[in-house]
This record gives sequence, structure tokens and C-alpha cells, in this order.
Amino acid sequence: MAVNIFQRIISGEIPCHRVYEDEHVLAFLDIGPLSRGHTLVVPKEPGATMDQLSDESAAAIGRVLPRLCRAVMKATGATAYNVLQNNGAEAGQAVFHVHVHIIPRYANRTAQMGLGMIWRPGELKDAEELVKQISDAL
Amino acid sequence: MAVNIFQRIISGEIPCHRVYEDEHVLAFLDIGPLSRGHTLVVPKEPGATMDQLSDESAAAIGRVLPRLCRAVMKATGATAYNVLQNNGAEAGQAVFHVHVHIIPRYANRTAQMGLGMIWRPGELKDAEELVKQISDAL
Repeated sequence: MAVNIFQRIISGEIPCHRVYEDEHVLAFLDIGPLSRGHTLVVPKEPGATMDQLSDESAAAIGRVLPRLCRAVMKATGATAYNVLQNNGAEAGQAVFHVHVHIIPRYANRTAQMGLGMIWRPGELKDAEELVKQISDAL
Repeated sequence: MAVNIFQRIISGEIPCHRVYEDEHVLAFLDIGPLSRGHTLVVPKEPGATMDQLSDESAAAIGRVLPRLCRAVMKATGATAYNVLQNNGAEAGQAVFHVHVHIIPRYANRTAQMGLGMIWRPGELKDAEELVKQISDAL
């Protein structure tokens, strides 16, 4: 796997705007923010997508998320936010090292930046079959 | 806080299409799926938003995410997916109990359902001030 920008940040080869670090996790400001305070939380463990992470690494990210979300909200004054993690190019992933976005929402955000979401739900079909397939795959 | 639908599912008052359960976490199919296999992962601990969760509860969600993502991908054949968690009505949250969406992506999804995302990044300004404010708030 080629070394990507987040791996180079983790190794210290290139700098970042670091807000938090522990044994397993590094958090820093996104340099292409969708809103003020847009923060990335990355595991130090290599892994392109969530399904490739160890349980321990994913748990470490989860453990620090409430604290990081509180800090980002307090620092920015935002009261709503999205936590988003994209896996695969078709899902919008651009850097192939796991990264969790914390994206504050502001009522008065400009049209020039931000995360737009379009939610087009359908109906749940073949639920029993799906439950069996997913349960069997666990 | 009023008892909402996810709390009623956790308590067993109303049924769900359950795919996984442990001491801290319940996962089940979304009944208004954005794509086939759309799964919700919820903490049993009450909490409307991520910032309100205990570290332990958030870690438990993180810990099971890689395994659940692998199972959903294997069961559905999807190769890309979004992990999304909305906090606050302005961020698209509709049920006020923390829930993490696992949303498979398909190249051939119909226009009638799915998650659309519009990414409008801006420039990072006042980075030093932001780092200080967030770090101080941690």
C-alpha cells in the first residue's frame, strides 16, 4: 500500500494542526474544512477502511469521540454536527487511511461551504433474509 | 427526555430486525433504508448525541464497527459504504438516541433511494486559534 498523506502525518513527516493524540489515535484540523472546526480523527494503525481496522483501534477511536465532539462544539459554539466516515471511492473516500470527520453545523453557514446531504430512503424488503445473511457473516 | 423509538426497541417493547447484540450495543436494519443492508448501531445507554455518551459506551460501538461493516459488506456484496452519525436536527438527526448508520454503496443504485452527499470545502482559516480553543476544551 502506498504511503498516503495521513500516514505521513502520523509518522511526523509532514505537519498537521493537531488537537489530540494518544497511543492509538491522532486528531487534527481538516485543511479543506466543510465548516469551521472540521476535525479528522485517525487511527495510527494502517487501514484503508473501517472493516480493515482491529477491534482495539476502532474502540480507541470510539472512546475518544464523545470528548472530541464536546471540545469541538465548545470551541466553535456549534450545536449540531455530523460524524462521518467514508469507505471506498464510491462512498466519497479520497485518502485511503481511515478517517472520521467531525463536521460542525451552523445555522448561518454560507452556501459556499458545508456538507449537503440528500436522504432518499426506500422500503425495507427481504428483511428476514438480510438479517440471516448479516448474522451468518458476523 | 421522552422515550423514543430506539429506546423502545432496546427495552424490547417494540421489535426490530436485529443483526447483533452485546452488553452495550444493539444493531438492527433501518426500516427506511437508504440502500440494501442499511444497518443502525445504537448504544443501550441513553444519550441523544455522541457528546452525551460515556467513553465506555462509545468505545463499545467503535469496537464492534469493523466486524459489523465486514458482515454487512459480505452479506450484501457492496464494496463501499458510509458510516454516518448525525447529531442535532440541523445535522439531519430525526430520532434523539445516538445511532450510527452503516450505509452500503452500490454502483447501480437506483435514483429513487440512497445517500447523496455534496462536499463543499472551504479554506482553513485561524488554524492556530482553533487548535488552541479545541485543545483547551478537551
